[in-house]
Amino acid sequence: MSLLVVGSVAFDTIETPFGKAERVLGGSATFFLFAASYFTPQRLVGIVGADFPRETLQELQERGVDISGLTIDPAGKTFHWTGRYAGDMNAAETLGVSLNVLGTYKASVPESFRDSSYVFLANDHPRTQLDVLASVRGNPFSVADTRDFWIAEEPRLLGELLQRIDGLVLNEHEARLLTGEHNLVKAGGVILKRGPEFVILKKGEHGALLFCGEGTFAVPAFPLETVRDPTGAGDAFAGGLMGYLASTGKRSLEAIRRGITYGTVTASVAVEDFSVEPFRRVGKQALAERHDAFLRAIRF
Amino acid sequence: MSLLVVGSVAFDTIETPFGKAERVLGGSATFFLFAASYFTPQRLVGIVGADFPRETLQELQERGVDISGLTIDPAGKTFHWTGRYAGDMNAAETLGVSLNVLGTYKASVPESFRDSSYVFLANDHPRTQLDVLASVRGNPFSVADTRDFWIAEEPRLLGELLQRIDGLVLNEHEARLLTGEHNLVKAGGVILKRGPEFVILKKGEHGALLFCGEGTFAVPAFPLETVRDPTGAGDAFAGGLMGYLASTGKRSLEAIRRGITYGTVTASVAVEDFSVEPFRRVGKQALAERHDAFLRAIRF
Repeated sequence: MSLLVVGSVAFDTIETPFGKAERVLGGSATFFLFAASYFTPQRLVGIVGADFPRETLQELQERGVDISGLTIDPAGKTFHWTGRYAGDMNAAETLGVSLNVLGTYKASVPESFRDSSYVFLANDHPRTQLDVLASVRGNPFSVADTRDFWIAEEPRLLGELLQRIDGLVLNEHEARLLTGEHNLVKAGGVILKRGPEFVILKKGEHGALLFCGEGTFAVPAFPLETVRDPTGAGDAFAGGLMGYLASTGKRSLEAIRRGITYGTVTASVAVEDFSVEPFRRVGKQALAERHDAFLRAIRF
Repeated sequence: MSLLVVGSVAFDTIETPFGKAERVLGGSATFFLFAASYFTPQRLVGIVGADFPRETLQELQERGVDISGLTIDPAGKTFHWTGRYAGDMNAAETLGVSLNVLGTYKASVPESFRDSSYVFLANDHPRTQLDVLASVRGNPFSVADTRDFWIAEEPRLLGELLQRIDGLVLNEHEARLLTGEHNLVKAGGVILKRGPEFVILKKGEHGALLFCGEGTFAVPAFPLETVRDPTGAGDAFAGGLMGYLASTGKRSLEAIRRGITYGTVTASVAVEDFSVEPFRRVGKQALAERHDAFLRAIRF
């Protein structure tokens, strides 16, 4: 089934205790795409500048991404994020943001993508997320991400979005900010009441919690010896989840739970090294083996 | 099979964001005993003072604890710990320690307990832990806890202990201190090489990791809406694990993994309220139901 992602394609400059990477491929949609490409073809809506490498566009296409919804602004430069992780690497410190072409861009879904059955709305203004979703016909299975800025600045629109989506993915900090509840299980319950069928709370190296009408489910992260750069883990998680679901055509709780195990595994790939490098090293077969190993590690 | 625990029986005075409890029942052995009592009778080695309530001794006996190894010092007062949890309640701040009878006490196993098949060595001087273990005949299945103080002050004796025990349980901070490795999976591997058959790394609300020759296994915590006092969670975890193992007579990896699910559930009971109160409310049937619910929540 067709899978659409709307999000950022970017350059990242990142420093972690394990090294530094200058102006490497990043962005929420990018990590999502690389993760989802193990499972299914995808459609991308986003924007880059004239400085974006042609080879990377080609690489995306080779991975099954339809880039006909990607605007290439001949007069602009690609969005560039600079950040740093210190200590336990649980949160990035943003050192600089050059919005560049993202500054005036408002995502819009081309006609040919409006029949998408699965939609991932990466972090963006909730107005844009709502408009994107409204432009997709039928009843797509939709999952959205958000961030602290929108929770604080656009609570009403975010509330509207919660009523339109099937699932919300967010982290601990965001869940607490959105609900005012410190306890994560209570926070999950509060968000559920505001609309979505399910909520996935991403806890980074501590795994994830799934909240839905049927109860609360907990999954640990893949135990990793090497974590060099956590950037993109959340989007890679969403990519594995949505890629798996789109590849099966399912949207049941059972499928979502299975998808979460794939999301956990694609997130574990993302953090092993800077940028999308690890996805280039880990092929489909290796990913399947890692997923088997993960299931063995969590079957108690 | 016979299960021996050597550890502290204490009074705690505790403050958390959810309330305060003055001079309530606490101690590593106490939490272990209340948790293990769902599964099997136990033997206790420890010490209390003349101020220790007779009714509590009776309660322990009613829960299947042989207290003939508990010294009651007629001239002394019971160990008293005062602590506080703030913010996310992940670590206690010790406000005061009155060692009292513990100050000069050195645990010694009575002859009638020396045939114990399962031994839990709660946090203590590694010299005492070694001596206790040496006094038990045969080949008991032994698990030890430790803490940062002994890791820093008695590294040689602790190293000796690691070579004598089957399993070590410790928390993240202790694992990092013991190994110098920040990454927990690496830390687990380093500890394994120093002797024990398995290592269980307790991550509190984030669950636990099990390291052994067969690999690394991860289990989430029980998702809880109410956490009023984390005191004793680690010892209650060990109590559930060891109580289950002793009740089955097994010591295989499969049994340890099953035991970890019971330990997770008894730990979840411990933190719901101050002191051992929650164990008085949750009966065997309710515990079995909570264990079933936990398995459903983590089966992905």
